[in-house]
Amino acid sequence: MNFKINEAIELLERTPETLSHLLVGLSPGWLTCNEGDNTWNVLEVVTHLIEGEKVNWIPRINIILTKGASYTFPPFDRFSHLKNKEEKNIEQLLLEFKQCREESLLTLKNKLKTITDFEQTALHPEFGPVRLRELLSTWAVHDLTHITQITRIMAKRYKEDVGPWKNYLGILK
Amino acid sequence: MNFKINEAIELLERTPETLSHLLVGLSPGWLTCNEGDNTWNVLEVVTHLIEGEKVNWIPRINIILTKGASYTFPPFDRFSHLKNKEEKNIEQLLLEFKQCREESLLTLKNKLKTITDFEQTALHPEFGPVRLRELLSTWAVHDLTHITQITRIMAKRYKEDVGPWKNYLGILK
Repeated sequence: MNFKINEAIELLERTPETLSHLLVGLSPGWLTCNEGDNTWNVLEVVTHLIEGEKVNWIPRINIILTKGASYTFPPFDRFSHLKNKEEKNIEQLLLEFKQCREESLLTLKNKLKTITDFEQTALHPEFGPVRLRELLSTWAVHDLTHITQITRIMAKRYKEDVGPWKNYLGILK
Repeated sequence: MNFKINEAIELLERTPETLSHLLVGLSPGWLTCNEGDNTWNVLEVVTHLIEGEKVNWIPRINIILTKGASYTFPPFDRFSHLKNKEEKNIEQLLLEFKQCREESLLTLKNKLKTITDFEQTALHPEFGPVRLRELLSTWAVHDLTHITQITRIMAKRYKEDVGPWKNYLGILK
């Protein structure tokens, strides 16, 4: 096991600024391309990250801390951000993500003052018992997953443009 | 074809700052972990990006522009950064990458004042004729590939820590 709460927080703190430096000011083509039918573009990925801050991570941490081992998380709709979409640009989305993440981490750090047991659990609707440290690790890896997704979506825009180098670039497969 | 030189430059300009915001200040465990035997850690990936600036991208652009269609690129040793390693920390490496990239883009922008034909070619040692626009597209996708690699390396550090969520996180496979 590699999980340490301070090291997980290091990642969670960095994601909004990392995405801002990668994405703000890019031409629309980079932000609206996707990987094909029923795949997300960059704007949709960032909207999904915002949803997670609002309805997933802190609410589930709260359930573990306050309801305990026999309580089941409400399911998280991973596609909810595709419904009732407001038209926001990348600057607006990343500002909202940054604010939501700051609030989440402030809440988490306050809770950490009294958390002594990262092994405590609640029930996941599919997996059964899940531990607090598993949820926190997943939150950090979920960020990394979506940074990866964003760079892969953008890379694939040049899938044909790279010509024969396609064979060297596993990201395009 | 999606390639536009200004849009490719948008990506190339952003990579050093994006990596700095992701990586500077992280605990050593994030920077020195790898994906197993004969795989790179984050420091090695950044060192590889620096090598590319020094011996690959601009030198090959120069060959296309000055030597032309019958000239073969010298091969690029993708593992050269693993030999004669100096011990540099992530701040030093990212500063060097930033400086090399700024120099590369200054050189490129100067050349662009007189480039009218992005279809001109030179010979790749394996692929045969490759076009200037393919080389420039590859440079941008190569950046995205290595951002992806870095986030994947870090994610895998928590492969076991995420518990049953592993099934939802394709990056860990």
